[in-house]
Amino acid sequence: MDEPPIGDVFGEMIRDAFAVRTGVGPRPLAGGRVPRPVIEVIERDDGLINGAPVDHYLDEPSEWQPHDHRALRLIRGHVLDIGVGAGRTAIEIQRRGMPVTGLDTSRGAIEIARRRGLRDTVLNTIDAYASAPARYDTFLLLGNNLGLIESRERAPIFLDALARLANPGARIIAQGTDPYGTTDPVHVSYQRRNQDRGRLGGQLRLRLRYRLLATEWFDYLNCSVAELAELLDGTRWRLKSVDEQDRPYYVAVMELIA
Amino acid sequence: MDEPPIGDVFGEMIRDAFAVRTGVGPRPLAGGRVPRPVIEVIERDDGLINGAPVDHYLDEPSEWQPHDHRALRLIRGHVLDIGVGAGRTAIEIQRRGMPVTGLDTSRGAIEIARRRGLRDTVLNTIDAYASAPARYDTFLLLGNNLGLIESRERAPIFLDALARLANPGARIIAQGTDPYGTTDPVHVSYQRRNQDRGRLGGQLRLRLRYRLLATEWFDYLNCSVAELAELLDGTRWRLKSVDEQDRPYYVAVMELIA
Repeated sequence: MDEPPIGDVFGEMIRDAFAVRTGVGPRPLAGGRVPRPVIEVIERDDGLINGAPVDHYLDEPSEWQPHDHRALRLIRGHVLDIGVGAGRTAIEIQRRGMPVTGLDTSRGAIEIARRRGLRDTVLNTIDAYASAPARYDTFLLLGNNLGLIESRERAPIFLDALARLANPGARIIAQGTDPYGTTDPVHVSYQRRNQDRGRLGGQLRLRLRYRLLATEWFDYLNCSVAELAELLDGTRWRLKSVDEQDRPYYVAVMELIA
Repeated sequence: MDEPPIGDVFGEMIRDAFAVRTGVGPRPLAGGRVPRPVIEVIERDDGLINGAPVDHYLDEPSEWQPHDHRALRLIRGHVLDIGVGAGRTAIEIQRRGMPVTGLDTSRGAIEIARRRGLRDTVLNTIDAYASAPARYDTFLLLGNNLGLIESRERAPIFLDALARLANPGARIIAQGTDPYGTTDPVHVSYQRRNQDRGRLGGQLRLRLRYRLLATEWFDYLNCSVAELAELLDGTRWRLKSVDEQDRPYYVAVMELIA
């Protein structure tokens, strides 16, 4: 097989999932009649391939995980929702009357978030947006978006970009996953292989595929709380609290060092 | 990426879907805790990749499509369920007290069908099994298994194998899908490309992937009723009736020419 062309995989699948959920717009059909659930295909660099339903990116608050609700109690001031996707969280924050900006690199996702009513959106990378004059009080990384810190090499750059966009007293509220509880031999040996190569155990090397398109390969980090604390060393952020009620998922609050 | 190793993709995914549905046995977990739905990844030779939930292979009769129920009213005598999978249909036939044998090439699928209570199973290809002394009155190809006739080249060989296993008056009951109703440009151009290469429009070239494993590439045929009639020409089978109530799905009954 040739390599698939690179495109806005996330945007395409969000658009289709929105069409399936609402009945608005052309939908991917099974056998030409029954709308099929939209599935995200995730390839890992050890050859593991998984499919995951996309519909949850559109979940209403009544369908959220408990830690999403607890995370939202921690926000304050102007919120930057990083990796806003279809606006799952940001639309609820806006509904509560709080100022919120949604940032994403996917044009299609931003389009759907706006169509669903999100007013303030930014189509950009966090690195490029860090030069903007905007300032925020809360940076939100829900839906496992703590993974966007990627790696030991990338984390300080990412965290510095947030510091440049931060008002005094700002916080990061990030949901992560501790990868080390698994007993699945496929994952255990993947973690060991990562560590043997000097990577963090849960430093996933992934690409997404949807229909004819693929993303580039990228790192996505599942780290333990102890690893997160180490990654914060030497940055302008310190770990303030961690909610581990829904282990292996956790919500970490980091605050800007004054 | 290297090519993934070849293995019993169907068996592995059926086993995991069975574990998720029943809570018995090790399950693939999302983030180490929440059982994730088992997803079959289907690659097509134009680069299209799709995921589809696997759970429906385990559906109880109350969850079936209407045409499955109508198809079962047409069986008689000793039934050979070809591509029996997890025994979705065969177990119900057995429950009704009718003689039924389930054939599959997947060791894992046969194991799950037996664990679910199916008594008479054959792990074999239809070609090799055609030399066996067994004789049947009904050949069942539900769950879109008419696709197993593959192509213009393969169909007469497949149909001849069934004829060799047939009692006088035997019938084939097969559920197929007419591919030509779609307006999705990806599928329309795929069909045209197939036809330009002398293939049937709906002659899908596929491989399945699940976790670390892949199947070999194989043909799977979605054909119109008119194409099916042509494929029967010169074989020992003739088209007796077609139930097209659930278009684009249909149930075709073919009978052995005396």
